[in-house]
Amino acid sequence: MQEQTINVFLSPLLLQVEDIENKIFVVADIFRASSSIITAINYGVQKIIPLKTVEEGLTYAQRGYVTAGERNGTKIPQFSIGNSPYSFMSASLNGKTVAMTTTNGTGALLKVSSAKQVLIGSFLNLSSLVSYLTSQQLSKEICILCAGSKGDFNLEDTLFAGALVSKLTSKRELQLQNDAAQAAALLYQQEKHNLVEVLKHCSRFEKVEHEERKKDLTYSLQEDIHPVIPVFRNGFISLLKD
Amino acid sequence: MQEQTINVFLSPLLLQVEDIENKIFVVADIFRASSSIITAINYGVQKIIPLKTVEEGLTYAQRGYVTAGERNGTKIPQFSIGNSPYSFMSASLNGKTVAMTTTNGTGALLKVSSAKQVLIGSFLNLSSLVSYLTSQQLSKEICILCAGSKGDFNLEDTLFAGALVSKLTSKRELQLQNDAAQAAALLYQQEKHNLVEVLKHCSRFEKVEHEERKKDLTYSLQEDIHPVIPVFRNGFISLLKD
Repeated sequence: MQEQTINVFLSPLLLQVEDIENKIFVVADIFRASSSIITAINYGVQKIIPLKTVEEGLTYAQRGYVTAGERNGTKIPQFSIGNSPYSFMSASLNGKTVAMTTTNGTGALLKVSSAKQVLIGSFLNLSSLVSYLTSQQLSKEICILCAGSKGDFNLEDTLFAGALVSKLTSKRELQLQNDAAQAAALLYQQEKHNLVEVLKHCSRFEKVEHEERKKDLTYSLQEDIHPVIPVFRNGFISLLKD
Repeated sequence: MQEQTINVFLSPLLLQVEDIENKIFVVADIFRASSSIITAINYGVQKIIPLKTVEEGLTYAQRGYVTAGERNGTKIPQFSIGNSPYSFMSASLNGKTVAMTTTNGTGALLKVSSAKQVLIGSFLNLSSLVSYLTSQQLSKEICILCAGSKGDFNLEDTLFAGALVSKLTSKRELQLQNDAAQAAALLYQQEKHNLVEVLKHCSRFEKVEHEERKKDLTYSLQEDIHPVIPVFRNGFISLLKD
């Protein structure tokens, strides 16, 4: 069997069109879109429709959909809910379809929609992802896309990418295809027992003034509390069933 | 005195126009443009004219200039020399002006030409850079631009950025403005006694088949062998004298 390879893209801006086709992508926006999507799917939301713009979200709101989203961390006023994972823990969302747009995460997902498969990852479902990616007869090329922060590199998505690379390489022979995969794994290995402390100094944490949002960030760093893998296909996100 | 800040850009693709004006930039392309430029200036080359394209280089060749450069690591046939630091150690280049174009480094330099000051950095002149940046009454904002590899992240430029951030923060109060500065410093701290070993697994090292070029790479990882700072202003690179 040919050796499987793994690439990490530290920002959507570092991704070329030719990197996408026939690859399996794991998209991560740890603070907070991917952590919220995983929570939502775990709590019974049936479908999430990721949207690029607030305007698209408003047309979904007018058509009676539950709408979720933020820009620069703040809930969009006309939307039903923001982008806190806690707001997706409501029984009222069970079985519902939610239209969602966020500053970084939903755009990153839409950018790789032509990939062979697009999974949503965070620390919350890390071991489930590792099990799936190692047990299936999958594409030979796994890519991890960090949503970053408005196109820039961020530390939390990179540490997640490093966690996934480290755990996958511990399970099977896997060639780290680009330097970013190596760097992310080195960073995670160094900081894995220290994630909250390291990320307290990062740009996102320092900008967060509200205690509510700080709670979201520490929540999002918990490992393996939701054993679900959301998959994005045909325009919506739902539970991967295999 | 207002606290000085430092930003790291892990690729020219992650740099926005508004990041450039009024900032002091250190540009690094460790394998090999910035290491070669520092070597050239230390060995007495008077001026280096960085060019974007091979075509521009050819017009300089026709006008009798010494031309230096490569694409994808290979010397451009019509040029006088390639991009090996060793080819700049010749007494025949003393006092000369060299027109130069490389895959990543010269493009990165030209991208920030509107900055307040543009310095060229590598491990070869690390301590000189640290002394200069801490002793001068400089811009409050220092930026390190990693040339990367065809727009993508690379490990060697990031480790250099981390070395510079680490050494500057050990000398004076300095705010790490973006996550990339923090990540680069963490990586350097972890790997500083192990640079050659870590970089042996990186994409550039693995692609290098010729022993000659492997020699360039280990040469470029030596610290502080050339106490010179090249500065890029008015369209050419020369020795910074102050």
